[in-house]
Amino acid sequence: MEKIDQFIERNRDLYIKWLTDFCGIPSVAAQNRGMEDAVKYLDELFDTAFSIEPEKLQTSGFPVVFAELKGKSDRTLSFYNHYDVQPEDPVELWETPAFEPDIRNGKIFARGVADNKGNLIARLAALHAIQEVGEELPVNIKCIFEGEEEIGSLNLPEFAEKYAEKIHSDGCVWEFGYRDADGATQVSLGVKGMLYVELQAKGANTDLHSAQAAIIESPVWKLVWALNSLKDQNEKILIPGFYDDIEPITALDDEMLSRYRLDEKETLNKLGLEHFVLNLEGHRLKEKHIFEPTCNICGIVSGYTGEGTKTVLPSEAKAKLDFRLVPGQDPEKVLAQLRQHLDANGFKDISIHVTSSERAARTKPDEAIVEAMIAVAEQYGDKKPNIVPNTPGTGPMYELCQALGIPSASFGVGNFESNNHAPNENINVEDYIEGIKMIAALVFEFSKQFEKEGSVHS
Amino acid sequence: MEKIDQFIERNRDLYIKWLTDFCGIPSVAAQNRGMEDAVKYLDELFDTAFSIEPEKLQTSGFPVVFAELKGKSDRTLSFYNHYDVQPEDPVELWETPAFEPDIRNGKIFARGVADNKGNLIARLAALHAIQEVGEELPVNIKCIFEGEEEIGSLNLPEFAEKYAEKIHSDGCVWEFGYRDADGATQVSLGVKGMLYVELQAKGANTDLHSAQAAIIESPVWKLVWALNSLKDQNEKILIPGFYDDIEPITALDDEMLSRYRLDEKETLNKLGLEHFVLNLEGHRLKEKHIFEPTCNICGIVSGYTGEGTKTVLPSEAKAKLDFRLVPGQDPEKVLAQLRQHLDANGFKDISIHVTSSERAARTKPDEAIVEAMIAVAEQYGDKKPNIVPNTPGTGPMYELCQALGIPSASFGVGNFESNNHAPNENINVEDYIEGIKMIAALVFEFSKQFEKEGSVHS
Repeated sequence: MEKIDQFIERNRDLYIKWLTDFCGIPSVAAQNRGMEDAVKYLDELFDTAFSIEPEKLQTSGFPVVFAELKGKSDRTLSFYNHYDVQPEDPVELWETPAFEPDIRNGKIFARGVADNKGNLIARLAALHAIQEVGEELPVNIKCIFEGEEEIGSLNLPEFAEKYAEKIHSDGCVWEFGYRDADGATQVSLGVKGMLYVELQAKGANTDLHSAQAAIIESPVWKLVWALNSLKDQNEKILIPGFYDDIEPITALDDEMLSRYRLDEKETLNKLGLEHFVLNLEGHRLKEKHIFEPTCNICGIVSGYTGEGTKTVLPSEAKAKLDFRLVPGQDPEKVLAQLRQHLDANGFKDISIHVTSSERAARTKPDEAIVEAMIAVAEQYGDKKPNIVPNTPGTGPMYELCQALGIPSASFGVGNFESNNHAPNENINVEDYIEGIKMIAALVFEFSKQFEKEGSVHS
Repeated sequence: MEKIDQFIERNRDLYIKWLTDFCGIPSVAAQNRGMEDAVKYLDELFDTAFSIEPEKLQTSGFPVVFAELKGKSDRTLSFYNHYDVQPEDPVELWETPAFEPDIRNGKIFARGVADNKGNLIARLAALHAIQEVGEELPVNIKCIFEGEEEIGSLNLPEFAEKYAEKIHSDGCVWEFGYRDADGATQVSLGVKGMLYVELQAKGANTDLHSAQAAIIESPVWKLVWALNSLKDQNEKILIPGFYDDIEPITALDDEMLSRYRLDEKETLNKLGLEHFVLNLEGHRLKEKHIFEPTCNICGIVSGYTGEGTKTVLPSEAKAKLDFRLVPGQDPEKVLAQLRQHLDANGFKDISIHVTSSERAARTKPDEAIVEAMIAVAEQYGDKKPNIVPNTPGTGPMYELCQALGIPSASFGVGNFESNNHAPNENINVEDYIEGIKMIAALVFEFSKQFEKEGSVHS
């Protein structure tokens, strides 16, 4: 690996440029901005790096960029990433423009640099470095880069079903990855699922002078009452049946949770907070973080929200909610439960519009991809890797991997303060360079797992 | 009056131009736009119409434009109006730009044309017409035009105290006035009070990826729970003590309420609604509208409110609330009760910022100003005037009138679908011309009340 690592070091400026050029493209799927440019950029990069043109596999939404690189064994490792990013607002809180990547204090700042363009480019850079030093890839590689992860991967389940054979692999490196505050690499074995909905309440056909509020129904009050009916102040989600199907936590899960490290003090400090929700700490805090579902309000808006006073009775009110789900929960069933709950509580006229629906996923810790990843993380880090049974985040892992029998796990170039989905998103330059080396090492380590153990992992 | 009315008819284009020119000025106090231009316009109009320059009485905010015209008796009639208007948003719902007055289908459309530039200019036009036909004013006139009504007249109580003598009168024509759907003129004897507050909840020091929602407190959930604690689904305001000081409804009030007409079907039709709040109708509906306080959400905002999906845990949440108060309720006391209620329910960290605080006011129906107004409304309308004990709207009437012993009442050029505070605000051209005539007639009728009845009304 030394030769490859040295090559990566010598070419760090090139690989940083690959990344910052990519991050300069505002590929916000939610707003249909820069998506074609992002695909074009990937086309050019594959041409430059590997002299191939990736396929653009069409979906009902943005295409999946797909490429295969042949290796010497018949084993296949796949990389799942996405070329879309979150919107950049609140724009005014960015220190430098979100889509003008800026390197300062050893960090690269840009929307998407951590989530997930840094990982996507690091993987291509690793493959490039392996080939450039004259090594043959030990396994086949499949790159699966979608364009709708940040809007809920609505078309990916259909894609995964249609292209099940084409995208099949013996292990998948999932899109994200972070380091803890102490520098330890997180190895993540799964994701939470998600149901993302927009609720809308309507009142009169126009905004009214608020003097009318005594006799005209208010859609924003209705929405407030409806939201209040969903979760109580003890964070209990009140939708009947919501918790029923959750898979019990196994002894192995619980053991992993005990070993999983969450730096409470560092996290609170960084966020300017004095305590976690419900004053939780220790094992119970970790348990809620990793193993429990959420009901979060991502946004709410109604009426006059500008400066000063406006006395108005708004004509409509909207809220965006995300439910993070855990293994066993079916987003379709949760949606039906939500509708039923609203109807039963007098909110029949509040509409629900679904924008994302994904199941949770977890890979078992004895799979080749997991063991290879842990081995690499141990080689490259001076801290013991932090193994997370599933991250609290979401992605279409179930649909793309577990449902097709593909074990999946994840590490990557982000850090504990990467500010994903928030202003001033960033990664450390050194984590990025190290991340490239770790992916190169993982390709060989993954291959070794099969040589070592025969067909145990097949 | 015939000569004056004919003069008004002959000069209708002039008086319409006075109004549309004034409405072209975006005097939005909440945004400090066009306020100086509005004052300058009034200066020029007083110069054109009466060859006088009004005083600009300074306050801590925008000045009060004040002018006196001498009449032949020692009685004084005052006009209270405001030259500021509401913000124009939602801009996209206006058929023509809010500050480019447009006359179509017999209506003048512009922000502020009904609330309250139409009335302000109609009053000046009436005085102009009286003088132009060679008549002497029968009473002294005082014009009191403030610039902060739409932002809660925060500086008017201090102003009224300071200039109590200067602004004293025997009766005040209040700023607003409307016609019902059947064309009847509303004569209003009072206003509700108001407490307008902005509530703010804060969470982490930055927006976070919503995966964090399992363990980090959400300010928007906190705000939803806090709002929910303020009012239940039966419209009962839950703040302890809120209803305690309300003055009981007298037999006279109730009798007036019985005579007050609210066209339920027309109102519902116009608003595209099937029923009023709580399915109320008839006397109970009118009672709630006129005599009961409200707690309304004027606006709420937190997190991502754009198109599509963004999975974010917002770092703050804000709501704007107006409480419309009724006689007996003290906004300062309500504010203290609100603070105490939030504290007692676990919302100590939700901040309250007050932007408006006004008491309710009601004038007795046997005052000269009321009798004169009813007499004029009967002369000019073919429908019996609709007498409203107090309107459900708000203004600084208590501070400017009742607190100083000045009876006050109101009629004006608006209509039942004037869309005050809403897109496509308008008045009927004919109501405007008729309104000018009615103000001219009122000046004489008000004087007559004192001739007729000696000092009864003094």
